[in-house]
Amino acid sequence: MGFQTYSHKVQYYETDQMGIVHHSNYIRWFEEARIDMLEQMGMGYSRMEQQGIIIPVLSVRCEYRSMTRFGETVEIIPLLRKYNGVRMNIEYTIVDRDTGELRCVGESTHCFLTKDGKPVSLKREYLTMDDMFRSNLPEE
Amino acid sequence: MGFQTYSHKVQYYETDQMGIVHHSNYIRWFEEARIDMLEQMGMGYSRMEQQGIIIPVLSVRCEYRSMTRFGETVEIIPLLRKYNGVRMNIEYTIVDRDTGELRCVGESTHCFLTKDGKPVSLKREYLTMDDMFRSNLPEE
Amino acid sequence: MGFQTYSHKVQYYETDQMGIVHHSNYIRWFEEARIDMLEQMGMGYSRMEQQGIIIPVLSVRCEYRSMTRFGETVEIIPLLRKYNGVRMNIEYTIVDRDTGELRCVGESTHCFLTKDGKPVSLKREYLTMDDMFRSNLPEE
Amino acid sequence: MGFQTYSHKVQYYETDQMGIVHHSNYIRWFEEARIDMLEQMGMGYSRMEQQGIIIPVLSVRCEYRSMTRFGETVEIIPLLRKYNGVRMNIEYTIVDRDTGELRCVGESTHCFLTKDGKPVSLKREYLTMDDMFRSNLPEE
Repeated sequence: MGFQTYSHKVQYYETDQMGIVHHSNYIRWFEEARIDMLEQMGMGYSRMEQQGIIIPVLSVRCEYRSMTRFGETVEIIPLLRKYNGVRMNIEYTIVDRDTGELRCVGESTHCFLTKDGKPVSLKREYLTMDDMFRSNLPEE
Repeated sequence: MGFQTYSHKVQYYETDQMGIVHHSNYIRWFEEARIDMLEQMGMGYSRMEQQGIIIPVLSVRCEYRSMTRFGETVEIIPLLRKYNGVRMNIEYTIVDRDTGELRCVGESTHCFLTKDGKPVSLKREYLTMDDMFRSNLPEE
Repeated sequence: MGFQTYSHKVQYYETDQMGIVHHSNYIRWFEEARIDMLEQMGMGYSRMEQQGIIIPVLSVRCEYRSMTRFGETVEIIPLLRKYNGVRMNIEYTIVDRDTGELRCVGESTHCFLTKDGKPVSLKREYLTMDDMFRSNLPEE
Repeated sequence: MGFQTYSHKVQYYETDQMGIVHHSNYIRWFEEARIDMLEQMGMGYSRMEQQGIIIPVLSVRCEYRSMTRFGETVEIIPLLRKYNGVRMNIEYTIVDRDTGELRCVGESTHCFLTKDGKPVSLKREYLTMDDMFRSNLPEE
């Protein structure tokens, strides 16, 4: 969809004593790339805050395919897979920037809430945001 | 199976600006409870290290059902669901200690490696450890 | 002062590829012990929240004396060293629970703010809290 | 000294429920900038690893001057302040990239060890590395 690729340089504090990146960090990298994608779609945090919307995580999964080490840089490619006005699914692929080797694939699902925790239907109440998500869905 | 319940007191540094525990921490709590379970099964880290075995994470998933907040204590209940000598699946349930409210359910899958990264079949090479896992499987 | 000792079991995700606990985690352990001490003094988070007070960190320092490893449990001993109604200093000593070996010493300094970020003088506006802190100062 | 400035984009998972970056993350940002500085000096991790040297943290301190929030980008400016062949001190200044507002100042001290934990005098045993550090000291 023409988004700029999101890169993350592996930090020393992200490693564990197995000598590789601790698996919980990939979940954080998903978030980094998701926020970057939303920004590129025009839904950056300041805009969301103005609208009073938060996007909590309903579920997350990650399949680790190869190990990531300190000194490497990974590319995290998020893809808005599903969106129906009240929920969305984002899929992620993480590859090594230099070799292209697949590090992991994953997914997160989300809903939309007001700041005081009430579910929101973007489809009914936030038409501009709704349009934005729809226009970034992959073509069937 | 008579394991002692694993409790975790929510820390301030585990919260995010949504005012709740950041979702990546549940993945870490799974690890805490998994390691505790392995210890209670007699497979604590020092023993594993003597044997030269590491247990990397192949996949993880988590479904968030309600929000956890600073000041709460959660109980994390791991369950060895599958084990076949080369892989295992552990399921997790996290509930609020005081109210019993369900916080999340999840799962992790694992294999067994030697310290230099070669796959190990416990069934063939580490019979005592193999027995230990088998004897902790739920009865069919 | 008769506080119960605060213990922390070292987690796998707190290690780094040097095979020891990453140094940033000691700062988090200080926080754990500080919050526990405040609770034991009667200043737990729910009470602070009712009063609308937050206690940000103005500075922190830590001197690392020996390495902490996965599988160990540490005791973190906080000591309210100074308090003058608008600021406080807390010192920390971390030792291995089993051997007593010194792991680190450190300090944090704090002020008191209202939720909307305005400095508060407990001495003038929150006399009960002020008393609580004063009564827990070491005797000169 | 002509080093390229190190930037860090604040991540959502770095915030806490005060709505600001948790103070422990600045210690991690120091590390990010330190590693980047060492790379720019020609002492990147792969080189250090070949030489069998690790650089543990002996102490760290941080003074927080203003709060950092999600959505901001900070610049972390490390400065090699002292180096005597067996120890070094690095000072850090963190400012907001856009406004230049001072976020914090800090310092870390380090020694040099072999991989098996023995102290090393670069001055005596690793002359090239010793030269590198000396040539990056500020002029008196």
